[in-house]
Amino acid sequence: MSFPPRVKLVEVGPRDGLQNEKQPVPAAIKIELVHRLQAAGLKEIEVTSFVSPKWVPQMADNAEVMAGIQRLPGVRYSVLTPNLKGFEAALLTRPDEIVVFAAASEAFSQKNINCSIAESIERFAPVVAAARAAGIYVRGAMSCTVGCPYEGEVAPQRVDYLAGLMKSIGVQHVGVADTIGVGTPLKVQRAVEATLKHYDINDVSGHFHDTYGQALANTLMCLQMGVWQFDTSVAGLGGCPYAKGATGNVATEDVVYLLHGMDIDTGIDLSCSVPPTPVPARRCSTSAPVDGRRRVGSMAGRGTAGDAVLA
Amino acid sequence: MSFPPRVKLVEVGPRDGLQNEKQPVPAAIKIELVHRLQAAGLKEIEVTSFVSPKWVPQMADNAEVMAGIQRLPGVRYSVLTPNLKGFEAALLTRPDEIVVFAAASEAFSQKNINCSIAESIERFAPVVAAARAAGIYVRGAMSCTVGCPYEGEVAPQRVDYLAGLMKSIGVQHVGVADTIGVGTPLKVQRAVEATLKHYDINDVSGHFHDTYGQALANTLMCLQMGVWQFDTSVAGLGGCPYAKGATGNVATEDVVYLLHGMDIDTGIDLSCSVPPTPVPARRCSTSAPVDGRRRVGSMAGRGTAGDAVLA
Repeated sequence: MSFPPRVKLVEVGPRDGLQNEKQPVPAAIKIELVHRLQAAGLKEIEVTSFVSPKWVPQMADNAEVMAGIQRLPGVRYSVLTPNLKGFEAALLTRPDEIVVFAAASEAFSQKNINCSIAESIERFAPVVAAARAAGIYVRGAMSCTVGCPYEGEVAPQRVDYLAGLMKSIGVQHVGVADTIGVGTPLKVQRAVEATLKHYDINDVSGHFHDTYGQALANTLMCLQMGVWQFDTSVAGLGGCPYAKGATGNVATEDVVYLLHGMDIDTGIDLSCSVPPTPVPARRCSTSAPVDGRRRVGSMAGRGTAGDAVLA
Repeated sequence: MSFPPRVKLVEVGPRDGLQNEKQPVPAAIKIELVHRLQAAGLKEIEVTSFVSPKWVPQMADNAEVMAGIQRLPGVRYSVLTPNLKGFEAALLTRPDEIVVFAAASEAFSQKNINCSIAESIERFAPVVAAARAAGIYVRGAMSCTVGCPYEGEVAPQRVDYLAGLMKSIGVQHVGVADTIGVGTPLKVQRAVEATLKHYDINDVSGHFHDTYGQALANTLMCLQMGVWQFDTSVAGLGGCPYAKGATGNVATEDVVYLLHGMDIDTGIDLSCSVPPTPVPARRCSTSAPVDGRRRVGSMAGRGTAGDAVLA
């Protein structure tokens, strides 16, 4: 059994995590969070999204956050762009990468973005084209690749279909997401296999939620398949509003613990302790019940954000 | 990659879980817990321990609990016995199996039971002999097989040594325990491999704590090695008082979710809903901070015990 010698983690806490916070998080806190994440060694950070503030008010400060970040060489900053208008706004903030998205479940696609999977891909096609013309890398997030809150189990054939569509419009990398955290290792394996019909192993990442505690087992299965890129969220921030009881993304620190314990390099320093900054201290509750049971390490206090993260 | 078609879970919540409760749990609640566990389909339950009540007051009602259980055919009831005196008391309660224990770490052995590993095995030899003479099956719990709160990492050679000693005194089955939950898959694999030098795969089980959320990944690794027996604790009850921040055993329901998701049979009904009984309702906090983030299923409310478990 062999494992990748190194793994790249894409930190999605600032975007996928904080977009689920009920209490508004000030832009200064978000910027500080990004600074602390990059100080801990994270090399790819999903910073914000350019979704309409009507739908996602938590990300209304997207341009302010992107402008406020002191970028480090070697770190890539990505943003979510739902449409051409969002992309155009994003472009002004000079992201290294944009993220487009579509669901493997028709029902989820309809409920989430009011259109079919095929229609969502059609809508993204000009966004992808524009991004690539501008020299910006395009990642595709494929949601509900193992289960859907409306349809239940999602067949690998649906993932095959979606990955093919993503490829057809020029998406360069795809993430296989278990959006509601219902996946187990063999189901995840099948979803990844379906994706690999269209994408090289180096262009595929895993994105797991920890609703039933399965995320690390799913990650281990992916590692065995050669997947070496994963989305994670510091302190397990995030959650899916569509799945009752569903909680956050898998915690960055848990994945790092797994990987370092297996002698897999991540470049991340779990013991990173960044001196506090003058940003006013505040705590914000996560929208889902949080997990207070773990954490001996100092990287993060689970369920807190901003001031506490990475302090 | 192949997996065992079925898995046996040994429910250790009533013993390993409740012995860590700070608040006393009445015998009637413990008995009710065992009844609900067996109603959910658990076929092996570690009920209590016959340790001195001076050291573990939580288990002082051991004989009362064993006497109060309505045993079901096909269910096996085990108890922990630390010495001959404990075994003699246990014998009167007709357990199907006793559990003896020793550490793979010398420092842990000294701190936990005030003697070396070799001395602990010497002390257990007559217990094992007496149990086998009485036709009682003997399981050995090997603690700290990957890490120790005093020594840090524990080498597989120490596990090899301990498993050999266990075998030499007639222990029939051994559990490879990550007592403080610091293990990751490759370390656990090495500990199991060391054990397999002395025991058949059918006589080895895994026992993982979820301190850093690694338990299911470790379980998955064991399944791939052919291990098909695991200790689990309903609602993740338990914890190790020697490891700061260490939390409970892996939750039975999380392991069941993993296994059923992989089409591995357990005989356990996660949706089991046993009607409430006249036992007075009470809640007891777990000694470690508990995890309130999960649980959509109805098997258990995490971090509650007695009344809530399996209700």
